[in-house]
Amino acid sequence: MAEELLDPQTLRELLDLGNRHALNMVLEEAHPHDIAEACAGLDDATLWELLRQIDSPLKAGVFTHLPMERQVQLAESRPPGDAADLLEIMPSDDRADLVQALGLEAKQEILQEMQPPQRADVERLVAYPAGTTGSVMSSDVATLRSEMTVDAAISHLRALAGHKETIYYNYVIDQVNTLLGIVSLRDLVTNDGQSRLFDVMNKEPVSVRANDPIEEAANKIRGYDLLALPVVSPEGKLVGIVTVDDVMDATEEETTRDMHKLGGSEALDVPYFETRFRTMIRKRGGWLAALFFGEMLTASAMGKYEGAIARAAVLALFVPLIISSGGNSGSQATSIIIRSLALRELRLRDWWRVFGHELMTGLTLGMLLGMIGFVRIVTWYWFGWQEYEGHPYLMGFAVWLSLIGVVLFGSLVGSMLPFILRRIGFDPAAASAPFVATLVDVTGLVIYFTIATAFLQGVLL
Amino acid sequence: MAEELLDPQTLRELLDLGNRHALNMVLEEAHPHDIAEACAGLDDATLWELLRQIDSPLKAGVFTHLPMERQVQLAESRPPGDAADLLEIMPSDDRADLVQALGLEAKQEILQEMQPPQRADVERLVAYPAGTTGSVMSSDVATLRSEMTVDAAISHLRALAGHKETIYYNYVIDQVNTLLGIVSLRDLVTNDGQSRLFDVMNKEPVSVRANDPIEEAANKIRGYDLLALPVVSPEGKLVGIVTVDDVMDATEEETTRDMHKLGGSEALDVPYFETRFRTMIRKRGGWLAALFFGEMLTASAMGKYEGAIARAAVLALFVPLIISSGGNSGSQATSIIIRSLALRELRLRDWWRVFGHELMTGLTLGMLLGMIGFVRIVTWYWFGWQEYEGHPYLMGFAVWLSLIGVVLFGSLVGSMLPFILRRIGFDPAAASAPFVATLVDVTGLVIYFTIATAFLQGVLL
Repeated sequence: MAEELLDPQTLRELLDLGNRHALNMVLEEAHPHDIAEACAGLDDATLWELLRQIDSPLKAGVFTHLPMERQVQLAESRPPGDAADLLEIMPSDDRADLVQALGLEAKQEILQEMQPPQRADVERLVAYPAGTTGSVMSSDVATLRSEMTVDAAISHLRALAGHKETIYYNYVIDQVNTLLGIVSLRDLVTNDGQSRLFDVMNKEPVSVRANDPIEEAANKIRGYDLLALPVVSPEGKLVGIVTVDDVMDATEEETTRDMHKLGGSEALDVPYFETRFRTMIRKRGGWLAALFFGEMLTASAMGKYEGAIARAAVLALFVPLIISSGGNSGSQATSIIIRSLALRELRLRDWWRVFGHELMTGLTLGMLLGMIGFVRIVTWYWFGWQEYEGHPYLMGFAVWLSLIGVVLFGSLVGSMLPFILRRIGFDPAAASAPFVATLVDVTGLVIYFTIATAFLQGVLL
Repeated sequence: MAEELLDPQTLRELLDLGNRHALNMVLEEAHPHDIAEACAGLDDATLWELLRQIDSPLKAGVFTHLPMERQVQLAESRPPGDAADLLEIMPSDDRADLVQALGLEAKQEILQEMQPPQRADVERLVAYPAGTTGSVMSSDVATLRSEMTVDAAISHLRALAGHKETIYYNYVIDQVNTLLGIVSLRDLVTNDGQSRLFDVMNKEPVSVRANDPIEEAANKIRGYDLLALPVVSPEGKLVGIVTVDDVMDATEEETTRDMHKLGGSEALDVPYFETRFRTMIRKRGGWLAALFFGEMLTASAMGKYEGAIARAAVLALFVPLIISSGGNSGSQATSIIIRSLALRELRLRDWWRVFGHELMTGLTLGMLLGMIGFVRIVTWYWFGWQEYEGHPYLMGFAVWLSLIGVVLFGSLVGSMLPFILRRIGFDPAAASAPFVATLVDVTGLVIYFTIATAFLQGVLL
């Protein structure tokens, strides 16, 4: 395949030849993705010179395939006019993403140098909040009029191809941009050339609102097996198009954020090795310290039972076992619920049904673990491996009962916390496994010591 | 939109009319997705009668949009011949998915009733192991010959449309099925009708091997902005096509599995409310019990220090705080690394670079938490809230040092475990947050008690 021929050295040699035509002949054979990958090995000056030599549609293609950090670095290091010229030829959604990522000063300078229509387009797109369909849509949508014939439509699209995000899905609009229908290139090719679009188009197109969350668009694209979805305003006007790859990228990023949060750190938002050390410490250390503060309550809770521990050190033995079981059951519940909420399998209103499920699940799992714990305790006693200060059965039942309480509590906290967070407007994924574990640890200690001291009262205490 | 008109009642009324033509007229206006959704409210007998009345391409569309469990239930409850007739008209990838999900007996009976070509197709597809591109590809690929003209190709595709997964990407092959090139419908529409495909097609098509993991196909589809990818045998023969929505579904399912595992349970593989109680207990209880067995080592580890705790109960106070900090830092590291491995941002060979990163990160985070812990201990002492049996500074330093050790150990275990699991052929996602926490808890206790008893030797012990 062609990409194997491309490396930074080849690009440098092509550039040194000084023959723009030859350079473009060679590069046109390659995919922009592969050229961009080979460009990773070039310094900024050489890369910019190369971009300057590449002809227009390919130039934008190569630039948009560079990693976002590199795009920002290049755009901010050039005179605003140069950057603006490049931005004007970029696809509308990639352009808006880049502008979002620019520093405030560079952003303003570059926008000022852009042509008014492209500038207005960028400003409109970046106004949509992150996470909405509007924030990932493109405005490069191919539109047709319902009175056109199929042949006229094909000629029209032929002229547009190369400038639009896709010509496979085309939207039929009226004079004031109201979305009337959708006609695919497949429909056009398989219909008679003299038919009117009005008779050929699908008049009930599935669409999405610009302010809908991206997951809504993703679910429709998946459910209806689409490649693209028209994005409309509340009044039904066509404002853009969102394609399956936009949605794929967006959900992939969102999932990465969810996973990082589930693990108990802030989302890194950049690949592991591209994260700077300070950022890594800040994003992980922040949550770690917050959890540590929460967990300090365990020291206070245990302080209350210091006297009991001093009299019966055996009590302390089962603390890690019991609180970790609560944390583990909470971690299971929270990860399952967070994912179901993200996939919209569960809605906010389902919380009480989930509560019922987790009540039963938590009780059953707690009884199971408690039984194992009881057997462990009496077995060790029978074999003479541990004394339990002479009261293995009391300790065994105290541990059993505590595990039921702690595992039940863990399952309920782990499953309800994501609902609560979403209800009060936070991301459910913030209900990380460590967060749930911390909540459960403190309560778990209180449950355990309350039960254990009640059991051992008058015997060991 | 049409879907609003569709509900189980409407479907029943349409069926009762007994007018097959009218029924199909109405349903053709709706998307198979919406019809399938309305079918959820019908019992099996009514649903089967409805399917029998729907004309052929739509019938397969509605059936494939039903939830997989319903498809299985219907197929297994009918005579094998009926199910086989339905399977024959289904898209090749959906058909293979259904056959995979069938019980062994039903699978054999239904396959026996199918026409030989469709049966061979199914048997070929189901032979690919789960997780490979072959397991999600379709064999309904539109193929063309390089000597065809553009006009001839368009006529050919026109006849094929409706039977193929997509006609937007078409593959050019020779007599023995070798993939020569790719020509999109866009290329055909924008080129002169008399051109030969050989001069129009892209001769360097990006392709994927049937045995490559799905992530490989996903990365190529994303990197090269494709809607579909040809799947080839090791000899370069075209064996199928994988489309962006196949890949999206597959990665989405894989991510759900990863998330469930990260939370410390087995992947549920079905939505929350569709999981049966017994299955839920088995999938969560299995891991929970395994973790509980591992965590029982903490009771043994603490048993070794029972004497020390009896003499200085203050030692027990910081056990939950210290071991949970190790678990939390391990959980952060493991979730970040698992995700990076899944996205192929990290490769197996990167393990030592990650080790270096985590060594520095773990040390820094441990020092940070240790400092907070130290300040907490001496502050409580100054305010007279806790005595620490008279040795706050010794306790403070013991906790500080222990936290450095435990957080460092947690970060290293959490980051290395996914690499180790992948190296020995397991899924890295099995390195769940609770699994890492359990490993770290036992070691964390040993680290803490070793340091603390060394500090307090001769003072409290």
